[in-house]
Amino acid sequence: MTQTTFPTAASKHELEHGVALSPRFDANGLIAAVTTHAETGELLMLAWMNAEALAKTLETREAHYFSRSRNELWHKGATSGQIQQVVEARIDCDQDAVWLKVLPQGDGGACHTGARSCFYRIVEKDQLVRAAD
Amino acid sequence: MTQTTFPTAASKHELEHGVALSPRFDANGLIAAVTTHAETGELLMLAWMNAEALAKTLETREAHYFSRSRNELWHKGATSGQIQQVVEARIDCDQDAVWLKVLPQGDGGACHTGARSCFYRIVEKDQLVRAAD
Repeated sequence: MTQTTFPTAASKHELEHGVALSPRFDANGLIAAVTTHAETGELLMLAWMNAEALAKTLETREAHYFSRSRNELWHKGATSGQIQQVVEARIDCDQDAVWLKVLPQGDGGACHTGARSCFYRIVEKDQLVRAAD
Repeated sequence: MTQTTFPTAASKHELEHGVALSPRFDANGLIAAVTTHAETGELLMLAWMNAEALAKTLETREAHYFSRSRNELWHKGATSGQIQQVVEARIDCDQDAVWLKVLPQGDGGACHTGARSCFYRIVEKDQLVRAAD
C-alpha cells in the first residue's frame, strides 16, 4: 500500500537542510509540482500533487498529480499515453514545491492541447504570441 | 500607475488559444510562477504572484512576486541584490501558471539559503540528498 503520510519537519533548519522528506501541503492538501524534460530541460507543465500523488510518484517513478478540476488522483498518461518516467525528483528549500525531471512517453507531449509543453505562448506587452519552439 | 486588472477569457478556446493575457488567479488571488535561468535553463524557484506582482513584472521586466509569509508585494532582489531581469515571460495553456526566464543579478543566486537554486535536494527513497550541481 502506498504511504500517504509524511513527517513534519521539527524545525526550520531541519526543513531546509535536513534529510527527511517533509512536504508542506497547503490548506487544500496540495503541493506544486514543476515538470521539466529530463533531456532537454524544457519546462513542460505545472501541476499539483496531494500526498497520495506524491507518494505514488516516488513509488512508481511515474508522475502522478492531483486533478483540481476532476478532484481526483491523476496518473499522467494513463489515457493519453503520455506517461512521464521520473528520472529525478527534487524538493525546494521550504518543501512546498516539487521538481520532476521526466521522460515523456507516447507522442512525447505533455499538454492536453497537443503542444509539447503547456507553456507555448510568450507574453509580449498585453498580447500572447505563440512560441516558435 | 501599474495596471492590476486583467480581462477574463470569454471561452475555453480563447483562454487556451487566444492572444489576450487572461490570468486565472486562485481563491487567494494568486498564480504560480516558475522561474528558470535564461541561459542555463536551470529551475531556480517557484513562487506566487498576485495581479500587482504580475503587472509590475511585465512592466519593469524585473521579477516581482507576492510573499505569502509576509503578505506583501516582493520585488525579488530589492534587499538581497538578486534582482531577476526577465528575458521572457510565458503563460500556460489554461493561464494559471507563469514561466519567467530570468538573468539573476547580484551573486547570481535565487535562494534565501544561499543556494543558487531553491531545488538543491534530490528525493531518493525517503531521504533527501544534496545535489552535486
